[in-house]
Amino acid sequence: MNSLISYFRKHPLHILLLAIPLSVVSEIFHWRPIWIFVFSAIAVIPLASLIGESTEALAAYTGPKIGGLLNATLGNAAELIITIIAIRQGLLDLVKASITGSIIGNLLLVMGLSMLLGGLKNGIQSFDRQQSSNHAVMLVVVIVALIIPSFFSHSIGAEGSWGVELLSLGVAGVMIALYVVGLIYTLKVARSPIAVAGVELESEANRRWKPSRAISILALSTLGVVIMSEFLIGSVEEVVVSLGVSEFFLGVILIPLIGNIAEHLVSVTMAVRNNMDLSLEIAVSSSLQIALFVAPILVFISLLIGNPLTLIFNRFELLALGGGVVIAAMVAFDGESNWLEGAALLGVYIILGIGFFLLPTGG
Amino acid sequence: MNSLISYFRKHPLHILLLAIPLSVVSEIFHWRPIWIFVFSAIAVIPLASLIGESTEALAAYTGPKIGGLLNATLGNAAELIITIIAIRQGLLDLVKASITGSIIGNLLLVMGLSMLLGGLKNGIQSFDRQQSSNHAVMLVVVIVALIIPSFFSHSIGAEGSWGVELLSLGVAGVMIALYVVGLIYTLKVARSPIAVAGVELESEANRRWKPSRAISILALSTLGVVIMSEFLIGSVEEVVVSLGVSEFFLGVILIPLIGNIAEHLVSVTMAVRNNMDLSLEIAVSSSLQIALFVAPILVFISLLIGNPLTLIFNRFELLALGGGVVIAAMVAFDGESNWLEGAALLGVYIILGIGFFLLPTGG
Amino acid sequence: MNSLISYFRKHPLHILLLAIPLSVVSEIFHWRPIWIFVFSAIAVIPLASLIGESTEALAAYTGPKIGGLLNATLGNAAELIITIIAIRQGLLDLVKASITGSIIGNLLLVMGLSMLLGGLKNGIQSFDRQQSSNHAVMLVVVIVALIIPSFFSHSIGAEGSWGVELLSLGVAGVMIALYVVGLIYTLKVARSPIAVAGVELESEANRRWKPSRAISILALSTLGVVIMSEFLIGSVEEVVVSLGVSEFFLGVILIPLIGNIAEHLVSVTMAVRNNMDLSLEIAVSSSLQIALFVAPILVFISLLIGNPLTLIFNRFELLALGGGVVIAAMVAFDGESNWLEGAALLGVYIILGIGFFLLPTGG
Repeated sequence: MNSLISYFRKHPLHILLLAIPLSVVSEIFHWRPIWIFVFSAIAVIPLASLIGESTEALAAYTGPKIGGLLNATLGNAAELIITIIAIRQGLLDLVKASITGSIIGNLLLVMGLSMLLGGLKNGIQSFDRQQSSNHAVMLVVVIVALIIPSFFSHSIGAEGSWGVELLSLGVAGVMIALYVVGLIYTLKVARSPIAVAGVELESEANRRWKPSRAISILALSTLGVVIMSEFLIGSVEEVVVSLGVSEFFLGVILIPLIGNIAEHLVSVTMAVRNNMDLSLEIAVSSSLQIALFVAPILVFISLLIGNPLTLIFNRFELLALGGGVVIAAMVAFDGESNWLEGAALLGVYIILGIGFFLLPTGG
Repeated sequence: MNSLISYFRKHPLHILLLAIPLSVVSEIFHWRPIWIFVFSAIAVIPLASLIGESTEALAAYTGPKIGGLLNATLGNAAELIITIIAIRQGLLDLVKASITGSIIGNLLLVMGLSMLLGGLKNGIQSFDRQQSSNHAVMLVVVIVALIIPSFFSHSIGAEGSWGVELLSLGVAGVMIALYVVGLIYTLKVARSPIAVAGVELESEANRRWKPSRAISILALSTLGVVIMSEFLIGSVEEVVVSLGVSEFFLGVILIPLIGNIAEHLVSVTMAVRNNMDLSLEIAVSSSLQIALFVAPILVFISLLIGNPLTLIFNRFELLALGGGVVIAAMVAFDGESNWLEGAALLGVYIILGIGFFLLPTGG
Repeated sequence: MNSLISYFRKHPLHILLLAIPLSVVSEIFHWRPIWIFVFSAIAVIPLASLIGESTEALAAYTGPKIGGLLNATLGNAAELIITIIAIRQGLLDLVKASITGSIIGNLLLVMGLSMLLGGLKNGIQSFDRQQSSNHAVMLVVVIVALIIPSFFSHSIGAEGSWGVELLSLGVAGVMIALYVVGLIYTLKVARSPIAVAGVELESEANRRWKPSRAISILALSTLGVVIMSEFLIGSVEEVVVSLGVSEFFLGVILIPLIGNIAEHLVSVTMAVRNNMDLSLEIAVSSSLQIALFVAPILVFISLLIGNPLTLIFNRFELLALGGGVVIAAMVAFDGESNWLEGAALLGVYIILGIGFFLLPTGG
């Protein structure tokens, strides 16, 4: 018992693992869907964190280059699982909203919190302007590429027509090619924002995990995410109806938080420790991986599943993506941050949140 | 008589005070509305300037911190009065256009004139890139926040529905919170673009005004702006019809100029004196105060008046705001200006002016 | 025969002159339009290059200032000729698409190729951040000015109404005024991105051309472009129908390439030789000349021809222009480039190309 307490003291997030049995019980005994939703959502948080920790542990054995690749692919495992299950359920709007939400969550919420808390602790914080500018350029280019098809789709045909499907596949192909090129660049030439080497807080470091143990934990926590995501997604539609919130709000604000809280915490912690370079790099890198890897992979997988997902976003998502990337680029080019800027970024995130909250489902 | 001439030589703007009696006469004898409009518009210019001068004089006694607060709140008094009277008359389109116009007037017209005249006088002008970048970041973040609701409103409900009203109130609340946070930041931490310490040209300095005299002049000139604004707004609708110009053109181009010419002159004069840092700071700071203070205050006051104003702009205003802020941010990040850039900014302002001039009322 | 081979070895582009007789033959004997289109398109490439070379040769005699003016006006001769002939044929959509295409061709295709090939050869390439920022500011301001009328047009009246025509003429007037002001700035004050001094690759240098010979070659190649453009434009409509590609695709992707390949090659070659400053300057300068000189000149000439062209772009063109300029500005402000960024720019160009390819004519 004592050892359990000291374990949870070291790994406070893992206390949320207790939500797993509650989620299973609520599912079996058909509790009200809102409880299933809440318990399974909470349970995903520590499981996603465990996937990350076991990936780090494996990366520590494979060396930094392969480790970077492992991080770049497995780092988004939880998010991929949730969205694939949502695609199977036909919740395509939710999936697209959560792609948007993951990107603006990184660029507005995490960057804003990092700059606010980091600035309150450390005053004005500087970071390497050249490196952050490089990252910002990639970010802007990739987000522009991501939103182009949405402008063309309306004129090319209805959602689901072969023209729009072809456009989405073409863009997904270009994106994934750019992702591979980016990995090659990172491996052969220099660091790039596409694959960041693993970052560990000492409190989460599990270097003592042997590879076999790391692989077991990775497999178990992945299985856990799959089951919890089934429960979560299975209850979404009833939650939308009973709470009166829109599918967009769940997709843009809640779903992305669930899968990424652990990573977000690392980014904010780095800012508080005055390592603003690393904090920004994590946020930008996460956004790029969503756009260049997760989104196109989902397009291809959705085809196999038979519920084709297109990269056609609605105009609220376009506004959120466009506004988020412009703000993040400005911040990165500035080379300095303070808590007032952080508060302003959070203000934009809150205003977007109010908008998505008031938006009716199907809006 | 001689002393009057030497007074007007020192304070050339004050000669426009002669328009006050003309405005009163034209109102009493029911001259054609265009004359009432012209005289009262001209009369507002020196009165707005006197509000500014008496605020400066008070600020000189209160010290820089309280003085900065005085400036930040009273500096927009003339504009607030005109727009509140317009709200009472139900001219909500005019009010929203004048919010837009104040922002692009600062970012395109004043910045453009400053860079053009400053550049012609001083050649290429440099300014502190770090400080102007900081300002630009705040500017971009705030303008993005300001335009978000406009994109959501159409899907949330008709203008005037509770959803849109709630969205506007929510945004106004976030804005005013950010404004208060910005004032705290300026008072406690470091200079920020939200509240600039008072700037005086020697020719306008009235440090000899005692506080009692400053308060009297402040009260009288405020009263004068109230009366002149009543005449001005009372004649607007007939002017729109008889001249054939749109309400948008008056709101975007003319109304903002009337209330801000004195401040604009200070900014341009600073550029000609090769103090480009201060010139830019005034223009950016004015824009931020309109977005973070004037606009939300108008939303709240309009509710009390019973003519609720929403922060939902039309797409021309969105284009003007978006284009203006992107250009201003680029200029600020550049760290250098020349008269060609100034001419280009004025070109964009003229093109926007042509567009608003040709736009039919209700367009 | 040997001298001819050694000539073509020195001037590989000129081998394409052989397409001229093929184009004439295909026109006379009424071959299928696709052949007329292909041969005349190929023939324009070396002719446009010869116009450039003879302009350079003349510029070498007139000195750098007049030479800069010659380059700024004659540098776009081929493009002007093609688009004027297209206007006479009433292909206004094609003309507007090719204005867009010339700008994004420079900002995405040429910059992307330059950064990709230059980066593969030279690693990370730096360039003068101050100069490229200055250029980027002008670019952003000018492109914002160019896209403003498109937002107003819908509300001002139908395409072809006097209001929209007036708006286009007003904007064209402001643009051309800004162009003249830019030339004055370049002549009197300092280098600016509006008129770049001529750039020659040694392999293309023809300094031995006497002025009389240069003028003869200029006249002959201009005449050649006129004839080839007649053939080219004459076959466009049938090619659109028979190939099933949209007029937009031809206008945005193909037509701009034909008239500018020689200049594009210079820009890419400069990047490979690690002169990134010059490479970027050529690309930005070309884009500015299209917006400030070619587009407004076409508006005025189209009025004389009686087929009035407006500066009202559709939303795909607006997206391409907006996205292209934001990306180019980011790159310019960055001060560094690498081949990953180059690949990303090409990715955006390809995605835009897919979009325009799938767009139905009239879309």
